[in-house]
Amino acid sequence: MYTHFVRLRVRYAETDRMGYAYYGNYATYLEVARVETLRELGISYRSLEDEGILLPVLEYSVKFHKPALYDDELLIRTVIPTLPGVRIKFDYAIFRGEELLNTASTELVFVDRATGRPVRCPAHILKSLRPHF
Amino acid sequence: MYTHFVRLRVRYAETDRMGYAYYGNYATYLEVARVETLRELGISYRSLEDEGILLPVLEYSVKFHKPALYDDELLIRTVIPTLPGVRIKFDYAIFRGEELLNTASTELVFVDRATGRPVRCPAHILKSLRPHF
Amino acid sequence: MYTHFVRLRVRYAETDRMGYAYYGNYATYLEVARVETLRELGISYRSLEDEGILLPVLEYSVKFHKPALYDDELLIRTVIPTLPGVRIKFDYAIFRGEELLNTASTELVFVDRATGRPVRCPAHILKSLRPHF
Amino acid sequence: MYTHFVRLRVRYAETDRMGYAYYGNYATYLEVARVETLRELGISYRSLEDEGILLPVLEYSVKFHKPALYDDELLIRTVIPTLPGVRIKFDYAIFRGEELLNTASTELVFVDRATGRPVRCPAHILKSLRPHF
Repeated sequence: MYTHFVRLRVRYAETDRMGYAYYGNYATYLEVARVETLRELGISYRSLEDEGILLPVLEYSVKFHKPALYDDELLIRTVIPTLPGVRIKFDYAIFRGEELLNTASTELVFVDRATGRPVRCPAHILKSLRPHF
Repeated sequence: MYTHFVRLRVRYAETDRMGYAYYGNYATYLEVARVETLRELGISYRSLEDEGILLPVLEYSVKFHKPALYDDELLIRTVIPTLPGVRIKFDYAIFRGEELLNTASTELVFVDRATGRPVRCPAHILKSLRPHF
Repeated sequence: MYTHFVRLRVRYAETDRMGYAYYGNYATYLEVARVETLRELGISYRSLEDEGILLPVLEYSVKFHKPALYDDELLIRTVIPTLPGVRIKFDYAIFRGEELLNTASTELVFVDRATGRPVRCPAHILKSLRPHF
Repeated sequence: MYTHFVRLRVRYAETDRMGYAYYGNYATYLEVARVETLRELGISYRSLEDEGILLPVLEYSVKFHKPALYDDELLIRTVIPTLPGVRIKFDYAIFRGEELLNTASTELVFVDRATGRPVRCPAHILKSLRPHF
């Protein structure tokens, strides 16, 4: 299991008429969390794409307990629960201070851009992750 | 069961570096689908809010089968599977022509803006829905 | 001069904490207006890109008179004021019913994707536009 | 004149099919820059709104020199060029390392939420700004 924390602040653009962070914007927050989680492992998602590996999302689910509000500073805990194969799973919990706002989960698949077909997780990612499992 | 169909087109703003509609933007597409589904039933979501009833999303899940691409015309099928109580559920399937691109589900809760507390589905909504169940 | 009208509705995702359409989202509305203006001329922006011509925005300015609100139906008037050369200009006015909400202007440049360099407006676009000037 | 610098990174959600940061997303970047500029002055934009002062954008213009790309770290320089009256102006330049990517300008107006009418810049903001002019 690999755990990473990232902080971000709710932007005005991301609020809605209720004064909440719009529910669709959590997908972006989780993307930031994933990318920073990988970066801490020494993996650049940008480089991955430049090397021809795409990582589209297959499944995404989220449960909202409390809304995040404008200018709130959020703490996102990201967990990679298992070593990736063709797919990689991330679990998330978003906090404002001590309060749990929501929990979410995504599953992504490694895809060869040239063929459009699923491929196994690149060796250098497994190498970075293995010590944590 | 109540079913409604709405069409929309993937905007450039909604694409990402992969050339796909960004996975986070489906939440917006589903919001459009919900709002138009309610409108066809004679229910204005805007009026609902103006009358002090909010309808935040509690749960959202989506499974992606194929990506939508720039300028694709999407057909969203929205189903209200059961009569709402304090919560209302919507199930969705997004198609491009005959192709199923993804399926999703959301659960929302009726909230009294003044008290911040859950309330039962307003009577006029139930009245519009009942003939379909 | 070539003029086109398109209608769209303000989505919940596009509102902000003030209850306005967030000022950044007008760029998206104008993109929709541009794309539909070109489509009416028989030009698919998607095909243009697929043929290797990109059309990035060089300049964008907007003056807001009144805010658009959630669920407002907007009418966007798009004008191509002059025949394009290496650049193409669009002028816009956004209305809610009779009310003028804002006016905007964009200038875009035709770019060869392969070389990254500006190129003249493709002949088929000029051919479509010329009868209107 | 008051100058502030803020850094942010281009998110995947903010890219488009060209691989650029979508032109509409710069409005969000500039909002972040404004809010952080005010915060450094000891002014919370959120508190301002909570006290009943809105700050909608009246004018916005931007000139793009080079595109920002996915995962680029951007440096935004924000300048408040003159002491605000009823309106407040911000000028911006966005850099990637030494490269100037674009320049922009916004003009906003202080509005009393209760009356919907323009009001003069609150005294505590002027007090924070005055030593810099």
